[in-house]
Amino acid sequence: MKYTFLILFFTSILSVFGQKIDSVALKTQVSQSIKDLREFVEIPSDALNPDDIDDNIFWLKKQFEKRGFNTAELETENLPLFFATMPMEDGKPTVLLYMHFDGQSVDPSKWDQPNPYQVVLKKPSEEGYETVDFAMLDEKINYDWRLFGRATADDKGPIIMFLNAIDLLQEKGKKLAFNIKVILDGEEEKGSKPIASAVKQYKELLNADFLMISDGPMHSSGLPTLVYGCRGITTMSLTTYGPIKHQHSGHYGNFAPNPGFQLAKLLASMKDEEGRVTIPGYYDGIALSESVTEILKKVPDDDRVIAEKLQFKEAEKVGSFYQEALQYPSLNVRGLGSGWIGDQARTIVPESATAELDLRLVPETDGNRLKKLVRDHIAKQGFQILDHEPTKKERMQYNKIISIKERGVTDAFRTDLDNEYGNFLVNTLSETFGESPIQIRIMGGTVPISPFVNELQIPAFVVPLVNADNNQHSPNENLKIGQLEYGIRAFYNILSSPLK
Amino acid sequence: MKYTFLILFFTSILSVFGQKIDSVALKTQVSQSIKDLREFVEIPSDALNPDDIDDNIFWLKKQFEKRGFNTAELETENLPLFFATMPMEDGKPTVLLYMHFDGQSVDPSKWDQPNPYQVVLKKPSEEGYETVDFAMLDEKINYDWRLFGRATADDKGPIIMFLNAIDLLQEKGKKLAFNIKVILDGEEEKGSKPIASAVKQYKELLNADFLMISDGPMHSSGLPTLVYGCRGITTMSLTTYGPIKHQHSGHYGNFAPNPGFQLAKLLASMKDEEGRVTIPGYYDGIALSESVTEILKKVPDDDRVIAEKLQFKEAEKVGSFYQEALQYPSLNVRGLGSGWIGDQARTIVPESATAELDLRLVPETDGNRLKKLVRDHIAKQGFQILDHEPTKKERMQYNKIISIKERGVTDAFRTDLDNEYGNFLVNTLSETFGESPIQIRIMGGTVPISPFVNELQIPAFVVPLVNADNNQHSPNENLKIGQLEYGIRAFYNILSSPLK
Repeated sequence: MKYTFLILFFTSILSVFGQKIDSVALKTQVSQSIKDLREFVEIPSDALNPDDIDDNIFWLKKQFEKRGFNTAELETENLPLFFATMPMEDGKPTVLLYMHFDGQSVDPSKWDQPNPYQVVLKKPSEEGYETVDFAMLDEKINYDWRLFGRATADDKGPIIMFLNAIDLLQEKGKKLAFNIKVILDGEEEKGSKPIASAVKQYKELLNADFLMISDGPMHSSGLPTLVYGCRGITTMSLTTYGPIKHQHSGHYGNFAPNPGFQLAKLLASMKDEEGRVTIPGYYDGIALSESVTEILKKVPDDDRVIAEKLQFKEAEKVGSFYQEALQYPSLNVRGLGSGWIGDQARTIVPESATAELDLRLVPETDGNRLKKLVRDHIAKQGFQILDHEPTKKERMQYNKIISIKERGVTDAFRTDLDNEYGNFLVNTLSETFGESPIQIRIMGGTVPISPFVNELQIPAFVVPLVNADNNQHSPNENLKIGQLEYGIRAFYNILSSPLK
Repeated sequence: MKYTFLILFFTSILSVFGQKIDSVALKTQVSQSIKDLREFVEIPSDALNPDDIDDNIFWLKKQFEKRGFNTAELETENLPLFFATMPMEDGKPTVLLYMHFDGQSVDPSKWDQPNPYQVVLKKPSEEGYETVDFAMLDEKINYDWRLFGRATADDKGPIIMFLNAIDLLQEKGKKLAFNIKVILDGEEEKGSKPIASAVKQYKELLNADFLMISDGPMHSSGLPTLVYGCRGITTMSLTTYGPIKHQHSGHYGNFAPNPGFQLAKLLASMKDEEGRVTIPGYYDGIALSESVTEILKKVPDDDRVIAEKLQFKEAEKVGSFYQEALQYPSLNVRGLGSGWIGDQARTIVPESATAELDLRLVPETDGNRLKKLVRDHIAKQGFQILDHEPTKKERMQYNKIISIKERGVTDAFRTDLDNEYGNFLVNTLSETFGESPIQIRIMGGTVPISPFVNELQIPAFVVPLVNADNNQHSPNENLKIGQLEYGIRAFYNILSSPLK
């Protein structure tokens, strides 16, 4: 009785919001998607092993062709990419979907299951999770139970959600509102190196009206999430110099210049007490309008909860709240080293001191421009800047020497909040799930496919489909079963709702 | 003809300055001292192996008793000390000699000879040194040739010089001007831990008018050297805190506090651009009179040569020249660490950052007082000081947290430049070698026997007897043969010249 009521209630909710999805068929589809995911995960997917990638492409080809896609392996300077497309119909807008099928490398000894490529079903228990037999699902699918295995969440789960949404659309005879192109990356976890140049080579093929990336977790609140961009990154390595070789701190303390103090004074000159970069121009070009600030404030982060979780009293003050802070580039000391610390410490004046910096970028702050600002600031502090270890001649010539190593720039990308495809996704997710999605203007982290996104020059959105606590990149990666239902519903409605 | 002339010339020089030493007998004694040193070095002397120390004491007992000394093994809380004394005569001042017979541990694979305990004779050559058969010495002793082996210079050589000086004094029927007590340490290279408390236990036995330490190298100019003190040392370890555990620098860069920047700002606040400590009171009590400055300036250091050797343009400005800098305490960053550097660097906001400091001390600057000044300065910068890793409660309570680990203090010692025993040593060395010795008011480094020296409360002097380039503490330790002659002459005249 109670059960029937719930089903009726659920069905009525579905009919109110967005495309109505037959709840019984949906449940069957979720059940099917679990089977599909187990089969897909069973194919190891470590891009360090090219055979893994071939095996996955072989499987994907079969799955996509079975559903009526044309497929292709796109050769690159490294491993191939997988491409699939539905026969194109004129007059329809085209969506390009990006997902990846490779997973992080595994160390089975660190997992709570014998084989990370054999999915294990678990339910929450007092001690965390306990294993459940898959047969239990035949009785009832519990959406809080989880599927543990490498790449279940990152990022094979979303591919499975997509394929099952297609199945359901086809079963229900739904018309697709878009031409669909799918590009699947086999090296995302290893940095997606080939994709940036491949996009130039295959630009025609990949041409679309907008890009939808299904990778990464939803907001930790579990609410529908739509992401408009990701910060970029570049790094700098700064090394100051003391005496040649470590010297006895008794003989030369007070005489030989100390590279640690030099470095400390330099770093101290770059930021104020509250974490704001004081180098002129660092934040130039960033202007947050009231409407943007409103959207940032709507993200249901509780800054106190973040501080409590990370155990600090007060956050830095680059922004006045967490989402605002992410709209700015960072200047982070990710590493320091000089001589030895702890039990290894020796009584020396160290020969050098190194600070490793990472600079997270936003679209307004070009990485090369920021690095130049930092270099100019360093020069202003009286340092002679080198790109190599100083020679004896240079050491005798300059009082303060620094060598700077720079690595490349991965740009940020960010699509305007006010965009017809973005609005379409917001509306469709709202209608599908009964509440407005959380709109993340820019994520703090960097995705390796940023160059790919920027090269395409089309509006791009991340539509994350997996639970935030999925242990991405760690042992015991997992996907909540409820996310399969979420993803199938999301794809079902996005792909079949007409662009308004 | 030429040879005879040289001998006559040499003998006449000896007769002009100080006690005349029969040059033929001296040469024979140098030859004997080489044999003695080879025999002594052959007994391994690593204090990590107590049997080594016993074997050395057995040998020393025989040598000292043969020359008329009474000997004793002084039990300590660790390995025994060796003590010897000539029968005391009333009315004579008493000198206490300190040397040590243990050597640094050896790694034979790093030596250019098969066994570091088998002395090898070498002469300078174009490629450095080449081995010479000991039989070559029967023809002519070349004072520039060297004896390679562990402890040849640090510090068995000086013991051998002393014993051979005694032989020569006895052969020549010279009267000793002092009562002589000798304390030989068997754990100097391991920190002389027992000697500080042993000096309390055996205070009566060790009682003397002045202490003469023969350990460590002469000034690099090779000129006679007399040292009046050594700096002390203490250390502090400072750790600042960011988020609990390393956090993703994309997600939390600009939000989670960065411990490296906190530490950099703190360190930067402690010293000025030229290396002077800016913490009020740090240099209090140090006043260098004109006469002291004169003596410091007489040390024939060439600061440009030191800078050239260590490859820096300008020294720090604590003193206006090298010897002056050593009259002040130092504040040295001997180590820095946070996250990872180089190839290991990761994109994180590190959980903590550590600076290891060493503070070299002079007699005016008590180590505990200086550490308190540093702590007070840190507190003034707004840090909550802890002696442990912060708890979650503490993390949520304080914005800036630092944990400080302090280790013990080894005090400095310094004997007044204007002292009758010091003057006696200056005069005797001047007369013996024909030029005023270099007077080092305080050495930059720290000796582990400082507590022993301070506990005795008698004037103490270091009379170094070995070449500066002896590779002390390194493979290929060596002693110039000329130093044996130098040491025998120094001991001969010091022990037989009346105190004026």
